[in-house]
Amino acid sequence: MTPEILISEVGPRDGLQNCKSIMATKDKIAWIEAEVRAGVREIEVGSFVPAKLLPQLADTADLVRHARTIEGLTVAVLVPNLHGVKAAVEAGAHKMSLPLSVSETHSLKNLRRSHQQVLAEIGEIQAFLADIPADRRPHFEVSLSTVFGCTMEGVVPESKILSLTEKLVDLDIKDIGLSDTTGYANPAQVKRMIRAVRSVAGADRVTGIHLHNTRGLGIANALAAYEEGITTFDASLGGLGGCPFAPGASGNIVTEDLAFMFEAMGVNTGINVAELIKVREILARALPDETLYGFTPDAGLPKGFDCVAA
Amino acid sequence: MTPEILISEVGPRDGLQNCKSIMATKDKIAWIEAEVRAGVREIEVGSFVPAKLLPQLADTADLVRHARTIEGLTVAVLVPNLHGVKAAVEAGAHKMSLPLSVSETHSLKNLRRSHQQVLAEIGEIQAFLADIPADRRPHFEVSLSTVFGCTMEGVVPESKILSLTEKLVDLDIKDIGLSDTTGYANPAQVKRMIRAVRSVAGADRVTGIHLHNTRGLGIANALAAYEEGITTFDASLGGLGGCPFAPGASGNIVTEDLAFMFEAMGVNTGINVAELIKVREILARALPDETLYGFTPDAGLPKGFDCVAA
Repeated sequence: MTPEILISEVGPRDGLQNCKSIMATKDKIAWIEAEVRAGVREIEVGSFVPAKLLPQLADTADLVRHARTIEGLTVAVLVPNLHGVKAAVEAGAHKMSLPLSVSETHSLKNLRRSHQQVLAEIGEIQAFLADIPADRRPHFEVSLSTVFGCTMEGVVPESKILSLTEKLVDLDIKDIGLSDTTGYANPAQVKRMIRAVRSVAGADRVTGIHLHNTRGLGIANALAAYEEGITTFDASLGGLGGCPFAPGASGNIVTEDLAFMFEAMGVNTGINVAELIKVREILARALPDETLYGFTPDAGLPKGFDCVAA
Repeated sequence: MTPEILISEVGPRDGLQNCKSIMATKDKIAWIEAEVRAGVREIEVGSFVPAKLLPQLADTADLVRHARTIEGLTVAVLVPNLHGVKAAVEAGAHKMSLPLSVSETHSLKNLRRSHQQVLAEIGEIQAFLADIPADRRPHFEVSLSTVFGCTMEGVVPESKILSLTEKLVDLDIKDIGLSDTTGYANPAQVKRMIRAVRSVAGADRVTGIHLHNTRGLGIANALAAYEEGITTFDASLGGLGGCPFAPGASGNIVTEDLAFMFEAMGVNTGINVAELIKVREILARALPDETLYGFTPDAGLPKGFDCVAA
């Protein structure tokens, strides 16, 4: 049976980026390999940002090179700019994701760049990628971050989001993600936003979502997105990284709970949930100071729950 | 604007029943009154079970008598049998709920009674209620517990659930609830089960659901039930009571997170979420040894979130 949806593990990037601890490269590799054995088919292994900004992710190039040797795995990375794209291409990443914050306040504060500057950079990236032979050219996604609201601006007007989407379509971006950076999203808004962005970009370009569980609605938002036809869901093992604003809350939605929901619903993820839960042992050993979240791992799988072989 | 859905607070019953601490009657009253001020319109204040079994709920009759004086509040109680029904009627409860475990193993272990015995008791209750003048007769719900799976039996066959539903219809039960006692439910199953039970009992009799968050899917399951037309949702402030099988998990779904989801979606609950969150202070003071759960209270409401006046 072909998996119906893709759960993209972002723990080694988004999780670790929000941890104080630095995880050893060998432990990251053990983690990545164990997730692939449990059936995970896409992992964001790191981010091509300066090591002095995120020392936790300084080994991204090494990880990409190693992860590329794992059969059946799509190796994803975050790239903040053209410089990062060049490094990602050189290391051999299969997929790159660049965040474009729809809140310009957030964009200026976090990336120190206006919308116009980010869009210009995306244009340069497209030109750079066009010169790479198709078989070596990574998949390039632009993720609309703070699309469900911003801690500084509050609700971002839909008109602004749709005009940015149009510009991405004009720049020939084939993959436009939606990202609830702030954990503001609710299920009705998730459905509305997917429809709105698709009305401009077409359904084919809008297939992935990145959700946080800051206010407890992460899994419900994933359900809403699934019902709207989204097929790629970011999640983080053990909800690693936490949420600095919400002491009890994981940052990203927890991979184990998300996989459990879909598998329990009969939606094939390709993941063996029991095997996935065992991967937590690697995190617990390698990052003894970090809290691991997740309800399903704590409660255990229901009696009679059938784990599909990965 | 008339509230579209009813969030029924079950913390004073289901929450406290699973706490080690015993809450003073005056604190319970302060809690109940504060929730009503925040816009909560139905509260399950206790259970008419022997005080030696659940000393936490020994003051149920007093609470019912007091709560009846609060304008606009539907005073609900749990009743395990005819004896409890008589006590509830005497105290003046507006609504009574009796759990019928669809897992007979669970029924025998928890209530020490077979399905036949429980159904016979329900028949006696109906006869007793028929003799009470309509204006003093409480609303009587039978809740199908373990309907999404049992920790002892695993999945309970739908045929068994539907045959029990038929018997309840034969006994003229007007309100049949669905209860995920074990935290086994998933959104697809929630939708399927609502449709199945309604196919036998009719949509009018099946309007309420009781969900737990044991495996992190509680809020997603509530969304699924809402999409299927369910209008009454049990929840517990601060997820009080926890889940003995899952250290990090609330027992019932958290009232604050549920109310936040619906209000953020634009579904009117009649509840002012900011005011509701403040009610936690009463629990924190009165039950210092109990963990309070909830993501929204920890993270705070999103910037620009509009709390509807209760």
